[in-house]
Formats: sequence, C-alpha cells, structure tokens
Amino acid sequence: MATSIPFLDLNLPSVQGFSISQDRLLGRLDELATIGPIDGGGSCRLALTDADRDGRDLVMTWMKDLGLDISVDGVGNIVGTWNVGTGSPVMTGSHIDTVRTGGRYDGNLGVIAGLEVIETLMSAGLTPARPFSVGVFTNEEGARFQPDMLGSLVYVGGMSLETALDTVAIDGAVLGDELQRIGYAGSSPCPSVAPHAFVELHIEQGPRLEAEGVQIGAVTGVQGISWQEVTIAGQSNHAGTTPMRLRKDPVVVVAEIAKYLHDLALRYGGNQICTVGKIDIHPNLINVVAAKATMTLDVRNTDEMVLRRAEQEIESFIAEVASREGVTTSVRTLARFEPVEFDQRVIDIIHRHTTDLGHTVQYMPSGAGHDAQMLARVCPTAMIFTQSKDGLSHNPAEYTSPEDLEAGSNILLQTMLTLAETDFS
Amino acid sequence: MATSIPFLDLNLPSVQGFSISQDRLLGRLDELATIGPIDGGGSCRLALTDADRDGRDLVMTWMKDLGLDISVDGVGNIVGTWNVGTGSPVMTGSHIDTVRTGGRYDGNLGVIAGLEVIETLMSAGLTPARPFSVGVFTNEEGARFQPDMLGSLVYVGGMSLETALDTVAIDGAVLGDELQRIGYAGSSPCPSVAPHAFVELHIEQGPRLEAEGVQIGAVTGVQGISWQEVTIAGQSNHAGTTPMRLRKDPVVVVAEIAKYLHDLALRYGGNQICTVGKIDIHPNLINVVAAKATMTLDVRNTDEMVLRRAEQEIESFIAEVASREGVTTSVRTLARFEPVEFDQRVIDIIHRHTTDLGHTVQYMPSGAGHDAQMLARVCPTAMIFTQSKDGLSHNPAEYTSPEDLEAGSNILLQTMLTLAETDFS
Repeated sequence: MATSIPFLDLNLPSVQGFSISQDRLLGRLDELATIGPIDGGGSCRLALTDADRDGRDLVMTWMKDLGLDISVDGVGNIVGTWNVGTGSPVMTGSHIDTVRTGGRYDGNLGVIAGLEVIETLMSAGLTPARPFSVGVFTNEEGARFQPDMLGSLVYVGGMSLETALDTVAIDGAVLGDELQRIGYAGSSPCPSVAPHAFVELHIEQGPRLEAEGVQIGAVTGVQGISWQEVTIAGQSNHAGTTPMRLRKDPVVVVAEIAKYLHDLALRYGGNQICTVGKIDIHPNLINVVAAKATMTLDVRNTDEMVLRRAEQEIESFIAEVASREGVTTSVRTLARFEPVEFDQRVIDIIHRHTTDLGHTVQYMPSGAGHDAQMLARVCPTAMIFTQSKDGLSHNPAEYTSPEDLEAGSNILLQTMLTLAETDFS
Repeated sequence: MATSIPFLDLNLPSVQGFSISQDRLLGRLDELATIGPIDGGGSCRLALTDADRDGRDLVMTWMKDLGLDISVDGVGNIVGTWNVGTGSPVMTGSHIDTVRTGGRYDGNLGVIAGLEVIETLMSAGLTPARPFSVGVFTNEEGARFQPDMLGSLVYVGGMSLETALDTVAIDGAVLGDELQRIGYAGSSPCPSVAPHAFVELHIEQGPRLEAEGVQIGAVTGVQGISWQEVTIAGQSNHAGTTPMRLRKDPVVVVAEIAKYLHDLALRYGGNQICTVGKIDIHPNLINVVAAKATMTLDVRNTDEMVLRRAEQEIESFIAEVASREGVTTSVRTLARFEPVEFDQRVIDIIHRHTTDLGHTVQYMPSGAGHDAQMLARVCPTAMIFTQSKDGLSHNPAEYTSPEDLEAGSNILLQTMLTLAETDFS
C-alpha cells in the first residue's frame, strides 16, 4: 500500500474534449461558504445545526435544478441520483458539515464536484453506463456528535439507526431530535443498497503533495490509528531541596516517552507517524517536582501488523522507564481503528486518468478519516486527493488552487465513467 | 562546601545540665498555628494580611512577657533583644509569614526557638557574653510580595526602604500601605547595625536528612539558582497527515530539553539538581502537532562555576536541538541567584555542639532560600536544619518530631552561647 504499487495496464482511455466548469465549481464553493460564515472566509456548520440545515437546503436546490432523484435516509444522509444507465449506481460524495473553524474545501469539494461531474456530462450529452449518485453524509467531522463519519457508518450498516439517533451531542442535544428539528429525518432505509463503486474527491489536509510538488494523490487507504492516554503518578517535592536520586518525577517520564515515540517513528520510517500533542502537568509550577502528568500518544500506520508492533514496543518502554524512575503509570485507549485498504482497481483507475489528463500523481495513504473508508466496507472504493496549501485544514486559511480543484474534478469525472463500465465481480 | 569539610578542633565545650522546654516550644508552635488556620492543621498567614498581624501580635506578647527590648523597623521587621553582656548582639530568628498552604514549622520554629533559648537561659540564671536578639523578618516567603526574603534583604541594606515600600502584591496592595494598615510600619532604621553573628534554626524542607538517617544538618550555604523559561515555536499541523520529516514539532524539543536536563544532573552528580516543573503546550490537542510550547528550567548548584557551566551546556543544547527540529526558541531568565557560602567557623560550631549533645549531624547545603543568606552579607552566619518528614513543606502535612525540634533548639542555644564568646575579627 506504499509507493511501490505496480501500475496496472488497464485499457481505460480518458474521454477527451470536455471539462468541468471551474467558474461554476468555485461559485458553488463560495456560495456554500457564505452559510455559517466565520472570520477569515471559512465556515462553521456543526452537524445538524441551523447552519448545517441551510447548507443542506442549498445543496438540495442544486440537486433539484439538475433534476436528480433525491432521497434522505433515517440518519439524514442525502443522496441525489442521476437515474441513467442500468444497475447499481457509481457513487461519489462527501460531507458539508464542518468543525468550528472550518475551511471552505474540506468535504464541500467532494459534494460540489460530484454535482459538477453530473452537470458537465448532462451538458455534453454523454450518458454513463450506470446511474451516478452524489451522497451528502451526516456528521462526518465528529465535532458535534461522536463518532465522526457517523452518517456513512450507518449508511453501510456499521451502526444501527437506533443507536445513531440516540447519540448525544457535546451540547447535550440528541441526534434524532436535531434531525427532526431541522427537517432532515428522512424515510429512505438505512443501511442502503450498496453502490457499484465509490470514489471521493477530497483535499489532502496535509503537506505531502505540496512538499513533493505533485498535484494529485491516488489514495491507497486510510491509516490505522492508535490513541492512548498515559497517566504518570510520581511524588511531588520541592525542586530545590530534593536530590535527583530521591525523586519520582513524572515529567522525566513524559520526556522519555515523547522522545521514544519520536525516535520510534524515525526508526520505523515509511508511513509510521507518532505524535504527542497534549501534555498536562500537575501542579505545573517552576519550583515543584510534579506530582502527576498526563500525555496523549497518537500512533498511526497503514499496516496493522506494524502498528501493533509499535504499540507493543511503546508499552514495554513505558513499563521500563516507569520502573526505572519509580513512578506508576496507567494507560487508557482513547481510540483504535485498523487501517483501511482501498480497492487496488479503483486506485489504479484514478492513477491512470490523472496521468492521461497530464497531471502528476502519486500513491499515498490518507492520514485522516473519510466517508470513503466506510463505503469501502460494501463496494470497491478509493479517493482522489488534491493539494492543501501548507497542509492547512480545519482552518479558514485552508486553500487549494482553482487549477487543482478543476483537475481533481475532471479526474473524478473520468474515474466515475470508467467505474461505470468496469466489472468488479 | 561539600561533605569533606575538615572538622576544626575548636575548644568549645557545650554548657551541660539544662535544656529548653519541649512542652513550651510545642505549645507556642500550636498556638501560632491557630492563627490563619487551614484544613489539615497548617496556617495561611500571607505577609502583611490580618492573619500576619495577629501572628505578629502574639509573638510581640511573648517578647514583652520575657521583658525583651522590642524594635520594629521601617519594613516591619521585629527584633526582640535581651540586653545583657556587651557589644553587638548574637542574633537568631526567621519569619512567621507563610505560603497559602503553610505548615506549622517553616519559619515559625526559628522565631519560637529563639525565644525559647532566651527563656531557658533566663530561667537557669545564665547570662551570655553578648546581647541575644530574635528577628521576625517581613515577607520571607514571597507568596504575596516579590521578591522573597524581602525583609531581611532590606535589613542588611540589599534593597532600599523606598523600593520595598513601593512593592505591589499579587493582590494589588502596596507593601507600605499594608504595613501602615496592620500597624507594623516601625521607626527603627534600616538597614540595621550588623549583628555580631547570626544563626537560624529551620526545618530542612527536603528529604535528605530523613533519607540518610541523620538528625541535624550543619548548613554550609545556599544553592545558586538559575530559573529560565524556554518558548518554542514550531508549526501546527494535522497529526494524521503530516509526515515526520515535514514537521516542526515543539513537543519533541520539549522532550529533548527535559531529558537533557535530567541527564545533565545525573552526569554532573554532587549537588547538581535540575527540574522541569512546568510545561504548557498550545493548542494541546491529541491529534494536532503543536504550534507552541513553553517550559521552565530550574537549575541549581552550590558552586557558581559549575552552575555557569551547566547553563552554557543547556544553552548550546537548546540551540542544537532547535536547529535540528526546525523550530525557533527564545529563552528568558526568570531568576538568577549566585550561591551563598556560610561562615566556616559558625558551621563548625554548630557541628561540634550537635555531636557534643549526642545527635547525628552532616554538612549540607540548603536547597531553599532563607533569611540567613541575607544576614550572611553582613556577619558570620550559618543555619541548623532539622528533619522534614517525607521532605514535605509548604503543606499542612509538614512535620518534624518533638525530639528533633528540641534537639535543634538546644543546638541553637549552645551555638549562640559560643558565638557570643567567639572573636570573629
């Protein structure tokens, strides 16, 4: 699943001679960004708030204008379908909910580009071999309701509708009530019938493509994630009067663990990443040997076996350093997701079309979670990444150039056409 | 100034056959602790508050009952003098202000034991060769007004009275106003005339004596202190999408610096101690490579040259690791005190009497600051330490056994008698 994936010699020529409309694409991104506006040009549309409803209404208007068949399911997922061709649809889509400090591309691009693909093909009089559908999945960000990617998880049957509707928001609201309140408690069944294939266009939300000077990522899968919280209890003492040998200092252990994680990531190489993003010391005073410290460990890899090995080595190291420094530790798992591997055939279709259209491309894993990883449970799936300037995301300064937005959308179009003609059986 | 100080063969026999009253000593410690009481049996008497005034009033009552000549100077230092013998006085004393969560021994012991020495000698009809005086110094803790040891600093001329009176408390009050308010703006001049010698009895506030099974410390001086705050600016990024090689992670640098300090202390050995007690990460989220971190460095040694070398090595290391990790750092000095060396003759008088009285003793530096270090600027000075159970201090659980309190007070008595007869010229 790394950069050494062999290129499949698929006979999938790109359909030449037309392109999505950059102006229309940018115009819709701009218009959607005006809903729930925040300083700096971003948006705040937390899932199932009034702003989210207004955003949904706008997308529904666009779908209606295209004459799509629109369904809303029990958890509020909206699917607009261009009912042409035969068989189950080729699906694309993403989400339009945002974090509190959302940018204008994360999620929105995948939805609007899907509509753009359909409108472009309609205008060109080109009919695909299967229906095309565009999904708008509920609560992808997880900024208001946990877990994230909730809508797509329910869509594929990974969570029951009942459980989903009972989910309580960080503000105390109940998901089912909020769906009713904003008018998006639909009647279409979920889980839904599996699409023929799924492909999602999304911004990278990381710096790799830009740093490597490559326009497009053919996304091979989503990293596995291991989140742990380590609590270290030592003995608080006067920093001026306690000799080193009589100390049980949790901060020393925090430092050792953080350095170990960093060194482990460099030692493993490849896709291994490790982050300590949060440290809290108690009492956190300059002249007091701390009593207690907590720290978080964020460890990710695309290979489940490697991720497990990393977890085991970290566990052993924590035990060793705790024993040496005379502190006690407790470790709590905050989240654990196995890596998701996308479908090699879909990945290669994306790669081939990107090259065909004259853009640079590389295989890469996704560091963040996406709705596509849920769809991957039920149908051949992959993703297309565009550059994120400075790797910024979840930030009003999130930016992808108009050229890259257009390129990504055209690759989405070609990929969907090919998927419609591909037999995955 | 380490444990290898040669023992001077001074001809200073202890005066046999009498002892301070343990009951009276404990009774006064208990009575003082009832002023500004807090949960757990400790006290809160922040400097120049009503509780501090009430504590001062109680000590003044005891001084009056003993018939001492009492003076209060411009910064509120109280000195009670038993005017016997000839020449400048042998002085003892400490402070009765506390931190917010004060114990019942820190400071109080040195004042009450001084009164106990005088009362014991009076009762025994034994008159020393010089006047004996007991000082109660203003704002030793520094918990309300900065700097700490302010009263004794002004007493020896290290800070002007004007500057001291203008000092603003953490609660906004002005020191001079508060002195007036509580009735302790005295008329005695400061700086004062230098005593003949000074000796202070204090609890260790650290775990060394207890850990080594020794009753008494003959304190050789006070460590030098270097306090620095390091601010590290990196680049915030998504922890899931940013490869290790593209990161500028301040937390990695925090870990490296904290580990370096710990290793340096172990490498230097001896009295070297290093503490990182405070770390603040921004934004401090599990899945975000941090934008910024601040940490404090507390580095202490009894040897100024060694302390400077440690500071230089730490500075070089910070520059090296910052360059390697691509972050920018700024370092701010929060405090810097050179080590104080006490008078070898006074130290050895303490050591000799401790042994004479049948107690175990070791030479040791003080890790914390004390009024004695200010008096050391103007006269031969040293300190006597008693054990602190579990090294606890600034805590209601602070505890020294009655036997050790009595032993320390008797050593103080013998030391003061000998100091009165010692020619330091």
